[in-house]
Amino acid sequence: MKFEKPEILLIGTGAVGSFYGGKLSQAGARVSALCRSDFDAVKKNGIEIKSIFGNLKFTPEITINRISQYDRVPDYIIVATKVLPEIDIPNLIKDAVHPETSIVLLQNGIDIERPVSAAFPSNEIIDGLAFICVSRTSAGKIEHQDYGRIVLGRYPSGKSEKAEALRDLLTRAGVPCEIDDDIIAARWKKLVWNAPFNPISVLAGGANTRGMMESKATYTLIKKVMEEVALLAEKTGHKLPDGVIEKNLSDTAVMKPYKTSMLLDYENKRPMEVEAILGNAVRIAQSMGIEVPHIESLYGILTLSDRQNRS
Amino acid sequence: MKFEKPEILLIGTGAVGSFYGGKLSQAGARVSALCRSDFDAVKKNGIEIKSIFGNLKFTPEITINRISQYDRVPDYIIVATKVLPEIDIPNLIKDAVHPETSIVLLQNGIDIERPVSAAFPSNEIIDGLAFICVSRTSAGKIEHQDYGRIVLGRYPSGKSEKAEALRDLLTRAGVPCEIDDDIIAARWKKLVWNAPFNPISVLAGGANTRGMMESKATYTLIKKVMEEVALLAEKTGHKLPDGVIEKNLSDTAVMKPYKTSMLLDYENKRPMEVEAILGNAVRIAQSMGIEVPHIESLYGILTLSDRQNRS
Repeated sequence: MKFEKPEILLIGTGAVGSFYGGKLSQAGARVSALCRSDFDAVKKNGIEIKSIFGNLKFTPEITINRISQYDRVPDYIIVATKVLPEIDIPNLIKDAVHPETSIVLLQNGIDIERPVSAAFPSNEIIDGLAFICVSRTSAGKIEHQDYGRIVLGRYPSGKSEKAEALRDLLTRAGVPCEIDDDIIAARWKKLVWNAPFNPISVLAGGANTRGMMESKATYTLIKKVMEEVALLAEKTGHKLPDGVIEKNLSDTAVMKPYKTSMLLDYENKRPMEVEAILGNAVRIAQSMGIEVPHIESLYGILTLSDRQNRS
Repeated sequence: MKFEKPEILLIGTGAVGSFYGGKLSQAGARVSALCRSDFDAVKKNGIEIKSIFGNLKFTPEITINRISQYDRVPDYIIVATKVLPEIDIPNLIKDAVHPETSIVLLQNGIDIERPVSAAFPSNEIIDGLAFICVSRTSAGKIEHQDYGRIVLGRYPSGKSEKAEALRDLLTRAGVPCEIDDDIIAARWKKLVWNAPFNPISVLAGGANTRGMMESKATYTLIKKVMEEVALLAEKTGHKLPDGVIEKNLSDTAVMKPYKTSMLLDYENKRPMEVEAILGNAVRIAQSMGIEVPHIESLYGILTLSDRQNRS
């Protein structure tokens, strides 16, 4: 197998990056890590992962806090930072991108690939979507509480040998992993849930999924936001399966009450992914002349909420 | 003059009721007051009003905490409570309503007259809108910081001798007061400001007017909500003057940063007037088949925010 022990550079050792980086390392990949705030702790002690899949110690091959310290030729660069206007991904990774490097965007949101795709037009881009409850409890310490499935696919569409190689490694490490040839559709599908629940949980003053489902006017709003996401998906050529909205609603209704990741960010005064989750969808709609007033309303309030929360 | 010294029963001694009750008393009206939480303090010491129009001590003719204690025949009952589903106004006032009693609704919101109008179909209803910054600082203590104008009019429309008599009294006490023969249009006009700014100030996590005006996506939302309010006004036969939205926006842009009353309610864990400000507008739109998705979005989040805040 060609990429049995691939050379991987992980950008960002937050909860999601550390978890999947750790699992890939466990499966035999040579995983180095670029850290920011947790550099000292990770350099000294590696990353401890408490997981329902089994606890794990992840010691990166090389732990760096500046990209120039990395002197290998990576088969993959896995970007696992948040998607925020102030994080310039192309600039952050450019010194490590080689012609044969695949860039994996393990990030939330819609239409987030554009800057990377524009900066590295001849590199393969692989999109990754993580369905996982995992959090960073302190520097270099990660706790994986629930789920863990990951979906990978070549961006903008099609097959990728290297995405498949990643899937094989993750599967070997016990992570449920699927390949999706229409990964943009998969992003829209994930956004069906994220676009209403993440923002509303914050804007309602801190609500969990049960609270949001119980209030009739809120439920109506959630459904309308989902309908607008499905409409955008369809109009951009990625029609979602019938019943996707009903399934999201009924699944959420039986979930144990769940605090969204955006609410955790808000409560911890961390920046929220406003543009990746809402702003890009609004701009796609505007560029195509599609009305998405409910998404636009959430966006109008969440931008201010985020701004207030940062200051 | 027929109503030179009218007999008035004031329902609610919050900031707005106390202020205008006090000014009417100062002008010669015999004003009694039904209090709830402040009964002991008001009974003992009356109400102290610190005001930019001049400080004032307001001692009600009779101070009661149950309507059955009131044995007079009021020319006016002035309702100055909040508009909340749990406050049953008709039931609260019915023992004091006589055939000749005019019921004055000095309250916020749209379409709030319906229950009172249905319960007392042969009584005159006068609508009142207060444009004032006034707050209750402690039991029986009111502080009037800014503005103070009041608009009165017969509901649903037309002239009212008794509204004019109230205006004359208020004018005598130095309160700017106008009569509007289309008072429902005046309510819609006030809602142009209230519908966006009050909810968004709360939902954005506590924003003042300047913050709301500075964020581009928020400004867009504010404008769209205003447009929907103006559309509803027009469709219900109360077309607002041209330029009303631009004027609201430009006036707000030059105001000193202002914390909305709804935000003060939220921060003090008091119920918010969700239905009077948004819910009734949504229902009017639904009954007429008019789309108001931005108002609907605010409503969907604010109902939950209010619910969380009360519990």
